[in-house]
Amino acid sequence: MRVYLDCLPCLLRQALEAARAATEDENIHRRVINSVAAMIPQLSSDLRPPEIAQQGYQLIYQITGNSDPFRQVKVESNREALALYPRLKEVVSNSEAPLLTACKLAIIGNSIDLAPNFDYGGINNIVGTALASPLVINDYQQFVHNINNSRHILYLGDNAGEIVFDRVLIEELRQIKELEIDFVVRERPIINDATMEDAMAVGMDRVARIVSSGCDAPATILSQCSSELLRLYYSADVIIAKGQGNYESLDEEPDNIFFLLRAKCQIVARLLRVNVGDAILQRHRG
Amino acid sequence: MRVYLDCLPCLLRQALEAARAATEDENIHRRVINSVAAMIPQLSSDLRPPEIAQQGYQLIYQITGNSDPFRQVKVESNREALALYPRLKEVVSNSEAPLLTACKLAIIGNSIDLAPNFDYGGINNIVGTALASPLVINDYQQFVHNINNSRHILYLGDNAGEIVFDRVLIEELRQIKELEIDFVVRERPIINDATMEDAMAVGMDRVARIVSSGCDAPATILSQCSSELLRLYYSADVIIAKGQGNYESLDEEPDNIFFLLRAKCQIVARLLRVNVGDAILQRHRG
Repeated sequence: MRVYLDCLPCLLRQALEAARAATEDENIHRRVINSVAAMIPQLSSDLRPPEIAQQGYQLIYQITGNSDPFRQVKVESNREALALYPRLKEVVSNSEAPLLTACKLAIIGNSIDLAPNFDYGGINNIVGTALASPLVINDYQQFVHNINNSRHILYLGDNAGEIVFDRVLIEELRQIKELEIDFVVRERPIINDATMEDAMAVGMDRVARIVSSGCDAPATILSQCSSELLRLYYSADVIIAKGQGNYESLDEEPDNIFFLLRAKCQIVARLLRVNVGDAILQRHRG
Repeated sequence: MRVYLDCLPCLLRQALEAARAATEDENIHRRVINSVAAMIPQLSSDLRPPEIAQQGYQLIYQITGNSDPFRQVKVESNREALALYPRLKEVVSNSEAPLLTACKLAIIGNSIDLAPNFDYGGINNIVGTALASPLVINDYQQFVHNINNSRHILYLGDNAGEIVFDRVLIEELRQIKELEIDFVVRERPIINDATMEDAMAVGMDRVARIVSSGCDAPATILSQCSSELLRLYYSADVIIAKGQGNYESLDEEPDNIFFLLRAKCQIVARLLRVNVGDAILQRHRG
């Protein structure tokens, strides 16, 4: 999807939040607001929403001198989600449909996202939310069918903390059959998106091969990705794309992608024809 | 209160909504966004939030050529609220505490506000909300005491539609004692704020003298008001100030003001130490 005009005030709001996370200096907060506001008229309408976030964050990093303002938040999210890991495993193994339950948990785990103006109630309440939330778009049968016919899966991760839920889903996928699974992280820190460091912190290396996208947008912008990522992308049998950023960057791709996300803003909800907060497992309709 | 950095992304969001109300031309929407974004670095931190709205709307009017984008919305709000008028009168007269009930209705009537990102559920649900909502800041006893010792009341109105609820409150005030009441409207249309035309449309002239503030901000910016307004302001025994805009412009004034409003954004709610949505009847604490 291309940027909507609604994304521009949202960018400015996010810039302020990131500036406040980066420094306590209110003069710098104002400089960030001014610089991002001044950038807005220059932004092409052909960009995807995560690309404007990328440009905004580059400015924020330059002005604040802090290139990972949400580092502490990410460490804490990973820690909290890891503490929940035994419970997640128990919930999945006690479930009548363990893979479906793992999918639901991974989708609600996508709530742990600092970009949208979306209050999800905290990591510890996530299990209840996941079990109580129907998949409002539900292509699960196709998902299982495609996994059963696959050998190589490319799993595009999204946020810190959320990746613990992804690990649980990956472990369930491995229960079905032998699979080669690459788990993709962002090249550098942006918002609270997961990087190599986060993936290592939650032990993702024990269940998948961790690969950087080569891109520091909060998304998978193929034109910015490394050649290794592109090779994996075009050779994978199934691509699992987590979160709004990956949806916003790959929704026009003609490929074998399943989007697992929670709709967290009005624009994405409207595109998907769901309500904000809804849990989505959608086979790509490119 | 002075502008918070949070007000700047909110201004951009409001600009987009106003642009969409003013015209269907998406190129013009983008021009509005660009112009308001480019204005943001120039805005002084000494301004009050309604002053930045005023500057933003002047740009929007220039660019769209439409100086009253919410005209139709205002006509409709007045119409819907007038249709509710007999029910409001009945609820008040059947109440054990008619003046308190009329205050609560006038406060919840302040929900009819297009500026904040606040969904209040529609005019027809307002009576139930008002009766169910406690006054979270409740200076009602002082309010009654001051009214009892007053002769001249200056009533600073806020939004179209809401003014029907103000009319009901004014009618109840007149039940207590003989009062001289001036009802203040904005000089020109801005957002969905009430102007002379709106006040006439709901029959406010039958219960009060209608006066323009002389100012086209969505607030009472004293330095921009007419000399007549200032004379009334400084001679009134009690000032009733409706809504966030009037609160944001008069909260530093050392005067005999009662603020009747619903807190509709995080910033104002935080200043008042209440939650978003709370009903407030506050004696000025300047």
